[in-house]
Amino acid sequence: MIAQKYKQMLGAKSVIRELAEYAAVRGAEIGYENVFDYSLGNPSVPAPEGFKEAMVRLLSECDPMKLHGYSPSLGIQSVKEKVAASLNKRFGMNYTAGHIFMTAGAAGAIAHAVRCVTVPGDEVLTFAPFFPEYHPYIDLSGAELKVVPADTQGFQINFEKLEEMLTDKVAALLINTPNNPSGVVYTKETLEKLAALLRRKSEEFGHTIYLISDEPYREILFDGAEIVYVSCLYEHTISCYSYSKSLSIPGERIGYVAVNPACEEADSIVSMCGQISRGIGHNCPSSIIQLAAAEVVDETADLSVYERNRNILYKELTDLGFSCVKPGGTFYIFPKALEEDANLFCQKAKNYDLILVPGDSFGCPGYFRMAYCIDTEKVERSIPALRRFVETEYGKR
Amino acid sequence: MIAQKYKQMLGAKSVIRELAEYAAVRGAEIGYENVFDYSLGNPSVPAPEGFKEAMVRLLSECDPMKLHGYSPSLGIQSVKEKVAASLNKRFGMNYTAGHIFMTAGAAGAIAHAVRCVTVPGDEVLTFAPFFPEYHPYIDLSGAELKVVPADTQGFQINFEKLEEMLTDKVAALLINTPNNPSGVVYTKETLEKLAALLRRKSEEFGHTIYLISDEPYREILFDGAEIVYVSCLYEHTISCYSYSKSLSIPGERIGYVAVNPACEEADSIVSMCGQISRGIGHNCPSSIIQLAAAEVVDETADLSVYERNRNILYKELTDLGFSCVKPGGTFYIFPKALEEDANLFCQKAKNYDLILVPGDSFGCPGYFRMAYCIDTEKVERSIPALRRFVETEYGKR
Repeated sequence: MIAQKYKQMLGAKSVIRELAEYAAVRGAEIGYENVFDYSLGNPSVPAPEGFKEAMVRLLSECDPMKLHGYSPSLGIQSVKEKVAASLNKRFGMNYTAGHIFMTAGAAGAIAHAVRCVTVPGDEVLTFAPFFPEYHPYIDLSGAELKVVPADTQGFQINFEKLEEMLTDKVAALLINTPNNPSGVVYTKETLEKLAALLRRKSEEFGHTIYLISDEPYREILFDGAEIVYVSCLYEHTISCYSYSKSLSIPGERIGYVAVNPACEEADSIVSMCGQISRGIGHNCPSSIIQLAAAEVVDETADLSVYERNRNILYKELTDLGFSCVKPGGTFYIFPKALEEDANLFCQKAKNYDLILVPGDSFGCPGYFRMAYCIDTEKVERSIPALRRFVETEYGKR
Repeated sequence: MIAQKYKQMLGAKSVIRELAEYAAVRGAEIGYENVFDYSLGNPSVPAPEGFKEAMVRLLSECDPMKLHGYSPSLGIQSVKEKVAASLNKRFGMNYTAGHIFMTAGAAGAIAHAVRCVTVPGDEVLTFAPFFPEYHPYIDLSGAELKVVPADTQGFQINFEKLEEMLTDKVAALLINTPNNPSGVVYTKETLEKLAALLRRKSEEFGHTIYLISDEPYREILFDGAEIVYVSCLYEHTISCYSYSKSLSIPGERIGYVAVNPACEEADSIVSMCGQISRGIGHNCPSSIIQLAAAEVVDETADLSVYERNRNILYKELTDLGFSCVKPGGTFYIFPKALEEDANLFCQKAKNYDLILVPGDSFGCPGYFRMAYCIDTEKVERSIPALRRFVETEYGKR
């Protein structure tokens, strides 16, 4: 008989997807260029030319049987060597190819990591505001996702609440910095404090608490900030990366798990990922995509548009009286709504063709997310609509 | 703490992989051209030129943001329409795009299908000899794989044993025709008898028994045989396809689930696949690979080499006195070993640089598999080694 567990999930549509669909329908009516669609986190800049060139070169120069042949069950060795070398060079790590497992984006990476370091019934803690897809990633593995309430002052970590929730049942923490939806980057101080707490609690409980670090926005940093590589600060870290945002290739489903060599059971985790992959029928990401991504491992798309958009929106929103933490990266901003119910707020915004996502599904009611991975020209054109919306619905401020 | 379930799997290496690794090591010693490596089912003919052309065209003509952008969570509509249209035209089916779910090859398709139609504890029956990866696909879903003993007369279905094992606990059957490792194609009579039995038992038990049909070798048929499309004969069929063998692109991880529109819960199954995919972090196959495969949906690589190789090997093996069912498709042959323990038999064959896989891991001890997806020239050169092996170890026959 049909598996009710999955059938019951069908009712619950993603709020983000619903808003994106509304934007498409509205776009068909008035022209999509007139819909200020801040709903989806789909990169708005093309992949670097080097990615396309690598694809074409592979197709024209390689023996098709080798190029399109089965990759080894733990991934293509040369690809993993390039990934490890790049991380070592950039962040002073000491990965070998044996610490890297290629995945279908960060989603695949998290799904593998969580299955490696939890058993059904274990708890995984994450921090509001958080990416709502963490629920299926964790829940369907058999572990239980628990959400630490937000530090709404700065969207760093609410350590008081974390300490309360960090019990013996917690097998792993799942963090996301730079953060979707807040755009906030955890400071080195936050991460060091977190590492110290995890070491203390691991000792107290007599088992290692793993840190699963979801890093798809790692390279999208503003104001010339340097990347703080999480795994440098806590040895029991499994980094989950995606090329979706840095290379603007989200549909190609490519990323990796990088296991800190000093991590407990480091030598088993990548091999275990291979076994997990067999069970979920995923095996490896596409061979040619693995090979092409490895060719441009140190490149990114031109990500500067996101900082320009952040500057425009942050200034405008604060000028309009929004309470808003300044994003240090990503292409998201997460201001406080102008009324308690962010759902109502976002509903009203639709009348001005502003598509905003209420914070509820990110575990942070009362806030809303704008995904500003759109053309700067459109951001600029959205400003009068934003002003009209605020002034009409909430009065001059 | 680390998940012991997956860690414990690390010890059990695949016999096929071990033999392939031995062949590579031996190849480094004496030249790989001198190792008669019949271990791996890796296609030995290049992808059709049309696949490469489609890839290059997509890369040069499409907007990279659309080409490499997120595909919808249930797959790219135009791709699914092309797949449905092709199946409808070729097999007289009535699929819509809504009955198709794009997957990471047949492995991904089976992993999704089994999660749709079983709950943990349910039984899934398959038939010896069978592809050993069925164990992780099924076992790690929570269902239990049970193996119906082989019909060693013709490697069709042992209906007597099947009836004994087909209890109320069975949620689905998993079949594979043309078959890995036997090369045998189920006859229309076999499939009709199976369908009748499943209908009778479904009624008796008061629940539908699903048929999961694993079809990666569907197009590799010999002697001008026509494809018997399983789903035409039993409505509750979920077809699991891979382009790995027909297009010779196993590393690109592309295939699909096709749900018979008359199947119970047909309208839910594809959407459920989307939910399952979220949970295993797989989401969709690579966008460009989906689009390129759809461009050549009715093409295949030049598969004629496999029939030539079958002809040479079948004649030689029967001449040498092997008992052997004649393969009707695939690139496998599965003769009876010349001694009871096929492991010993294959061990001795290594002394003649013949890499043969014992049947034990296929659920059929006493037999061995040869994967003849290698150049015909090499098959021909292997014949003297085969003769020498048989005559030296087992005497003139």
